[in-house]
Amino acid sequence: MITKQNTLKIVPLGGLGEVGRNMTCLETQGKILIIDMGFRMPEEDMPGVDFIIPNIAYLKGKEKSIVGAVFTHGHYDHIGAIPYLIDKLGVRLPFFAGGLTKAIIMKRQDDFPHLPKLNITQVNDGDIVKLDPFTVEFFRQNHNISDSLGLFISTPVGNLIHTSDFKFDETPIFDLPTNFKKLEALGKRGVLLLMSDSTGAEEQSHSLSEKIIMENLEEIFKISKGRIIAATFGSLINRIQQLVALSEKYGRKVAVDGYSMKTNVEICKKLGYIKSEKGTLITVDKIQDYPDSKVTLICTGAQGEGQAVLMRIANREHRFVRLKKDDTVIFSSSVVPGNERTVQFLKDQLYRNGVKVFHYKMMDIHAGGHAQRQELRSLMEMLKPKFFLPIHGQYSMLVNHAELAIEAGIPEKNIVVAENGQIVHLSEDKISMDKKMIESNYVMVDGLGVGDVGEVVLRDRQTLSKDGMFVIIAVIDRQTGKVKGSPDIISRGFVYLRESRELLRDTRRKVIDIVEKSTGVGGAVNWVYVKDEIRNKVGDFLYARTERRPMILPVVIEV
Amino acid sequence: MITKQNTLKIVPLGGLGEVGRNMTCLETQGKILIIDMGFRMPEEDMPGVDFIIPNIAYLKGKEKSIVGAVFTHGHYDHIGAIPYLIDKLGVRLPFFAGGLTKAIIMKRQDDFPHLPKLNITQVNDGDIVKLDPFTVEFFRQNHNISDSLGLFISTPVGNLIHTSDFKFDETPIFDLPTNFKKLEALGKRGVLLLMSDSTGAEEQSHSLSEKIIMENLEEIFKISKGRIIAATFGSLINRIQQLVALSEKYGRKVAVDGYSMKTNVEICKKLGYIKSEKGTLITVDKIQDYPDSKVTLICTGAQGEGQAVLMRIANREHRFVRLKKDDTVIFSSSVVPGNERTVQFLKDQLYRNGVKVFHYKMMDIHAGGHAQRQELRSLMEMLKPKFFLPIHGQYSMLVNHAELAIEAGIPEKNIVVAENGQIVHLSEDKISMDKKMIESNYVMVDGLGVGDVGEVVLRDRQTLSKDGMFVIIAVIDRQTGKVKGSPDIISRGFVYLRESRELLRDTRRKVIDIVEKSTGVGGAVNWVYVKDEIRNKVGDFLYARTERRPMILPVVIEV
Repeated sequence: MITKQNTLKIVPLGGLGEVGRNMTCLETQGKILIIDMGFRMPEEDMPGVDFIIPNIAYLKGKEKSIVGAVFTHGHYDHIGAIPYLIDKLGVRLPFFAGGLTKAIIMKRQDDFPHLPKLNITQVNDGDIVKLDPFTVEFFRQNHNISDSLGLFISTPVGNLIHTSDFKFDETPIFDLPTNFKKLEALGKRGVLLLMSDSTGAEEQSHSLSEKIIMENLEEIFKISKGRIIAATFGSLINRIQQLVALSEKYGRKVAVDGYSMKTNVEICKKLGYIKSEKGTLITVDKIQDYPDSKVTLICTGAQGEGQAVLMRIANREHRFVRLKKDDTVIFSSSVVPGNERTVQFLKDQLYRNGVKVFHYKMMDIHAGGHAQRQELRSLMEMLKPKFFLPIHGQYSMLVNHAELAIEAGIPEKNIVVAENGQIVHLSEDKISMDKKMIESNYVMVDGLGVGDVGEVVLRDRQTLSKDGMFVIIAVIDRQTGKVKGSPDIISRGFVYLRESRELLRDTRRKVIDIVEKSTGVGGAVNWVYVKDEIRNKVGDFLYARTERRPMILPVVIEV
Repeated sequence: MITKQNTLKIVPLGGLGEVGRNMTCLETQGKILIIDMGFRMPEEDMPGVDFIIPNIAYLKGKEKSIVGAVFTHGHYDHIGAIPYLIDKLGVRLPFFAGGLTKAIIMKRQDDFPHLPKLNITQVNDGDIVKLDPFTVEFFRQNHNISDSLGLFISTPVGNLIHTSDFKFDETPIFDLPTNFKKLEALGKRGVLLLMSDSTGAEEQSHSLSEKIIMENLEEIFKISKGRIIAATFGSLINRIQQLVALSEKYGRKVAVDGYSMKTNVEICKKLGYIKSEKGTLITVDKIQDYPDSKVTLICTGAQGEGQAVLMRIANREHRFVRLKKDDTVIFSSSVVPGNERTVQFLKDQLYRNGVKVFHYKMMDIHAGGHAQRQELRSLMEMLKPKFFLPIHGQYSMLVNHAELAIEAGIPEKNIVVAENGQIVHLSEDKISMDKKMIESNYVMVDGLGVGDVGEVVLRDRQTLSKDGMFVIIAVIDRQTGKVKGSPDIISRGFVYLRESRELLRDTRRKVIDIVEKSTGVGGAVNWVYVKDEIRNKVGDFLYARTERRPMILPVVIEV
């Protein structure tokens, strides 16, 4: 007798085939569990876009089937889309998150006062939450933010492990070392499917321990005579704690500057995730009151962001900080791909101020938060999953992670490399993937608009940015068919108009010719045709003269 | 008795404080020698700009004093600005360049048929050219293009060495090994000033020898069953030669694709810089005629450029090449800073085609062309210069190179870190630098325009790219002061208009209000004021509704 087998769908809405915007749904027996709701930063060809959130079209009409959402940690690529999605999913949806994660989510909601209060339950290492038919057991992971949690999920099909972002660290600072015994114990309970972080799957070795970072940072503290200005990610709580502790050891006060960092430090101080002695923390306007050798400034802007603190300091635009020869600037961060040039510009500006600069290429003063190949492989060996689905990462990382799984002994047929929108089907003895993709394209947030910037708007922005625009306004006398006066031209981003009078004069003449050729024949005038003629002929004319193709917008007004 | 001492000015017009756009002038006794005339690629915030050339305002009025121009090698960051500068400097100016450099310069001039023929003399290793008061002795350097030459320049002040781009390679492929004896001999003749390539001054060790690259490439040839598709820089002649030689060894035909690469290969074949057996080279439309295991395609596009060959292949848009599972793609190139994301996109697309991908992070299959710290230091030790001026590189690289010189024993006061536009003064016993800078800002080339894209045009392009534009056209009845009909609105890149009818309707109403409030009071209407009002009030209104700031362009037409 054959009984209908249990199956489970894994629906990746973000984070598979890209870095960031993590969101995955598990679906079985008509019930859905959401894991994370993150955003990602726009790409370079998306000017004006603030960020990109997951497309939740798949969940439309299924809102009532969602049993809850679990959040693995407090980075925005895992929680940042909440304010944009929650009103579509149902605001009373039960959320589960670690202590710091919960605090960061709550704090962020303050920026969205129109949204109702969230329903978040705090969970800790070892907690078990039943969200029928799923049972989620949270286990501590090492990453570069406190309260990072992995998920051991029992389902009717079998046990799944979702690692979220993680690395192994046997000697972390201000955090517990990786609990390998726990991981082995989870493995012994039988893991049907492992979903594991691929971000580091193209890095050959092992992530650095925070102990090494701490030691190297201390070397810099030992030799620095002036102020220490340390820039890092605003969300890198552990690194901030390290810098606070070192400052205390070397008798330095600490100021924190940068909106996101100040907010995070405030939350973390309150909840005890950052510990400091009384009097260590000062405000940035007070750093002048202390000798240079007694001050550390921890700030944002290590990616060379135009308006962030470090760039303002480098450009001598900061209200309270002017660099001096003895100052030391530490970049305790990696360079996010795409930011290489702005970071170089920032470094140059700092050197122009004559300060000492330390960055991660010169010395190990930053460790990433993601397991590399050695760690990834050893996790697979501990958990011994039957099936494997690489998650979190560019497509190339997913492929390389899958190849690592084959090396580690998982049969190729038990591995699936899926992308956003490709539903994965899992049963006790099979994993497969739909060829057809569900809707999972980018939803762009620009200002108050969510999803209203689409391909057309973006393409126009790109065109406008390349050669600018050229508006031609011709007022036409209905009686005579003649152009009244001279056509108006408004152009921006094309050529410097004051130096192009001749070009403009010739263009006006051309416009008059085109119009009067059409109106001069008598009968009804086809204005659509006239406008097309202006667009094409003026376009060709301008290209011949300049080899540029501004966007041409003809306006014809009959009076 | 004190005699007036000889002095020499070094005038950096490009390449100091940036990578690319190399051009330096030496000036003494009223005579000027030019070294290189390169361009550089635009930065990310310069949409539409093709490239950036040196600003030669300093040379205006001094054209007759220029005794000649010497070119160190054939890369565009050393020769690319010639067509844009030569008519300003005097077309009969004597040029001196190595054989391949000369050929590439000549070939490029074909694209500029309006320019007269250049006056180029070919020089070789050991050649001496007298350009009074300068005597230039050319010596062979290893770089990643053939016929790279360093300059030993005798001047009334003393001997200068200009390394240009270089690295040490004791086991190059298809090139002679670095001639250390020659370098030592030059050092023994007394070097007053060393001007040395700083591009690799932040890299800790020694550049890789081409021998290693060749061996690793051969490993890939050994195991590849399908076609080999190798992407590299179009100017990397030696690498192309390596790939041709390996293909012959493994019985593969070679097709070359990509405009710049085909042009270069053509020149190099003719002049003997690339050698191949008869029948090895085939055209790309013929690769289907051979078994996959017998074909290599060498192509451009390793930087992920949108329209280059490799991207077209990855996107299945190439006329003759469709990827197959057994194909191997080799990135034999580094990633130029700023291109990380496009290269990642390209890699992902290739993986989606199921092919094998090799890139320089996985295996040493690319070597840069620039000496790293060990080599830079050993050069200083061989040449024993009295003074030191780091050239070619971002400001941070120049500073780090200067620090290396101090480590190598050159006194700090004998070292100058200058940037473009900062004139350096050299005499037998002193080096110094002007605080005041001469004009040396970017000259941008966009289409046919040279220098006509300035800050205003660029700023407009940036604004347009972020939130688009919004043109409002109001036709006003002169008699009544009323707006005739409804104001026209043309908007691009702002919101998707079809979905924003309400917003447009409200905006039109607002415009009518603003206009009629001004015209309703009687008397002469201040149209400038009305336009400003429209710009500001509609701007604020749109921001309140969308949190976007499109460029607003009001047009008021009285009839």
